[in-house]
Amino acid sequence: MTPPPTPPLPPAPPTDAAGVLARCAELDHLSATPDHLERLYLTEEHAAANRLTAGWMQAAGLTTWQDAAGNQWGRREGRSPGLPALVLGSHLDTVPDAGSYDGMLGVVLAISVAQRLRDADLPFALEVVGFSDEEGARFGKALLGSSAAAGTWDPAWADLPDAAGDTLARAFTDFGLDVARVTDAARRPEDLVGYLEAHIEQGPRLEAADRSLGFVTTIAGARRFALTVHGEARHAGGTPYPRRRDALAGASEVVLAVERLARAGGCLATVGRIEVHPGAVNVIPGRADLTLDLRAETDADRDAMWDTVHAELAAICDRRGLGLEVVETHRAAAAHCAPWLQQAVIAGIGATDDRGAEEPMGLWSPAGHDAMAVAAVTDVGMLFIRCADGISHSPEEDVREVDVARALDAFESAVRHVAAVQA
Amino acid sequence: MTPPPTPPLPPAPPTDAAGVLARCAELDHLSATPDHLERLYLTEEHAAANRLTAGWMQAAGLTTWQDAAGNQWGRREGRSPGLPALVLGSHLDTVPDAGSYDGMLGVVLAISVAQRLRDADLPFALEVVGFSDEEGARFGKALLGSSAAAGTWDPAWADLPDAAGDTLARAFTDFGLDVARVTDAARRPEDLVGYLEAHIEQGPRLEAADRSLGFVTTIAGARRFALTVHGEARHAGGTPYPRRRDALAGASEVVLAVERLARAGGCLATVGRIEVHPGAVNVIPGRADLTLDLRAETDADRDAMWDTVHAELAAICDRRGLGLEVVETHRAAAAHCAPWLQQAVIAGIGATDDRGAEEPMGLWSPAGHDAMAVAAVTDVGMLFIRCADGISHSPEEDVREVDVARALDAFESAVRHVAAVQA
Repeated sequence: MTPPPTPPLPPAPPTDAAGVLARCAELDHLSATPDHLERLYLTEEHAAANRLTAGWMQAAGLTTWQDAAGNQWGRREGRSPGLPALVLGSHLDTVPDAGSYDGMLGVVLAISVAQRLRDADLPFALEVVGFSDEEGARFGKALLGSSAAAGTWDPAWADLPDAAGDTLARAFTDFGLDVARVTDAARRPEDLVGYLEAHIEQGPRLEAADRSLGFVTTIAGARRFALTVHGEARHAGGTPYPRRRDALAGASEVVLAVERLARAGGCLATVGRIEVHPGAVNVIPGRADLTLDLRAETDADRDAMWDTVHAELAAICDRRGLGLEVVETHRAAAAHCAPWLQQAVIAGIGATDDRGAEEPMGLWSPAGHDAMAVAAVTDVGMLFIRCADGISHSPEEDVREVDVARALDAFESAVRHVAAVQA
Repeated sequence: MTPPPTPPLPPAPPTDAAGVLARCAELDHLSATPDHLERLYLTEEHAAANRLTAGWMQAAGLTTWQDAAGNQWGRREGRSPGLPALVLGSHLDTVPDAGSYDGMLGVVLAISVAQRLRDADLPFALEVVGFSDEEGARFGKALLGSSAAAGTWDPAWADLPDAAGDTLARAFTDFGLDVARVTDAARRPEDLVGYLEAHIEQGPRLEAADRSLGFVTTIAGARRFALTVHGEARHAGGTPYPRRRDALAGASEVVLAVERLARAGGCLATVGRIEVHPGAVNVIPGRADLTLDLRAETDADRDAMWDTVHAELAAICDRRGLGLEVVETHRAAAAHCAPWLQQAVIAGIGATDDRGAEEPMGLWSPAGHDAMAVAAVTDVGMLFIRCADGISHSPEEDVREVDVARALDAFESAVRHVAAVQA
């Protein structure tokens, strides 16, 4: 890696929405390419984002360090040194061709909240974290940074390759870290009060309800499956319909059944990938490989939906004389936001003018978040912020300044609420 | 290329089914690999197959030559020299991992029929041809050999690359031919009486009807389309159903509509290839690219079916808020077997004991054949032979000896019928 450039002097710490948005725009420049935003784990852009946010944290009066997994931390002691910490944060990495708010907005908001609370007398230390990898866009495994902090790092991850064939272990070394010491990043439960994360909703429900903010009830775990439909590859010209065992026709019924059942059951299920073999214009597909990603508010809902979907897929394949093979490739339990931290977020939202006197809106998160990983080591709570048209993982990701202003107020109030109940 | 080995001395020309099947088995050994049968255009195996069949042709009393496109010909003059020729034949090339009968059986049968007719007094010359490329497995363009013979060779084909990146022009040179002279292979209409081809059905209709043989009415032209369904790639977790524009869900409806409509309309339509983008497990597909291959007994049927299918696909995409893009990538007109040659084949079948007194069975061919190309220069007729379970383009391709025996008798009788009507 080239020597790091000297970071610019941090501007006066912003505590308003315009300042927060300006910092998000500044982070946009730290990208693998000038064409679009891409900031992957353990890259030069990652290092630059850590330096930039460390400067902001310092300007907010926090003591900063980068941990053994590349997460960027800042801390200010509470009313006495060494108290357990309430951690505010999100992630600094992005998907390729990303928007400006997924993750970064939560980190920048946390720093501004820390600045707002600079003179508060808190019964806990206040920490801010910018997690190094939530998206998993480089090594195909998500939540690497927050898993390290939660103490759930799997040593096997050291061998994960990136698209260029470099292992995660090698990337650690190139970044100036040692994967053998990654467990040093693990936080101890007794050192933590809890974790609060602000994040764009990445969905359209707040917008549809005309709300700026919402509190999160659970973060859905996903189950993922590799489905293979086995048929028979035969000549497209010579094989009449009664003789066809067309794997793609069967897979198409599968895709539509998944959509129909999950939609009716209030779950989210997606077939994101399909490949057929042999894949020739004049050959009936003999095999189709699909992926299925299934999410629901609770693990029980999700598992019941899978049982329903699986039975229907088996029936489809039976009817068409096709074989069906199912391999579960991923299973993550839903993370429940701690009721007392949900209450803190509700109180925070209630302290804003979002929808006047109406009750704050609770949502489950179909998308994963760092809070899922952090839940293994401490209680978590989340604040969702409306985003335009629910769009995320796209340069079209957008937020309104008024919503960011309300989020700042709510986030600050939520921390004050925690302080009040902890005192 | 290595110098050609001396061909083995041809055995006594077989005129029975066992002999025909033994020759098919002998051709099996001329393969790019010992594991399976693969004999592509302009390869050493092609040259070896030409040498072997030339020897058989000579043993049947034919004068042989290889033309400027690598087709192997043999000719015996009729009752006077220089008469127009009735050509009997099929192709000697194969797909990768081929069976033993697709093409080869027709060539070997033709040679045996020529042997049977050695002493016949015919009012035409009798020619036998083993076409060099029907499958198009090497250069992606089918019917190269028969198109050259029909005078419809397109000079642009010289630049077609094979999988190794060699052009067709280069392959001609390596084979000892000159692509600039390929037009020398073109036959003149006035030199031809017609073309008769025997071929396995490559479908299960004769088997279902308990017939050994059938006559072909038309060889379907195909129309092929590249279909693109445009949706929106969005986060699988964050996008509820009302906001989804899932290109794969739309494409799945397309696949099933194609199947439903073509089946109901007596056509054959196949989606052989599908690719989705971005193709990630947790991203709703934003685009799906499909191929569609559409065949029917007549061009009018086929075009009417396409209009119906196209309207339905547009309606599906409209309903789902998806875009649909259609590019026609291939269109070949159906070839009609000449009624007088259909009559000759019918008479031939009638002279056998296939199903006793029942009328011979007529079929349209959804698969393409050399006769399609040859139809550009002379009248064509085809005899279909039952194959096991309709399987073709597979090592499991199989024929019964009794059916080959009937095919020999029918083919010989058909030629005698042509001689009678030409006399």
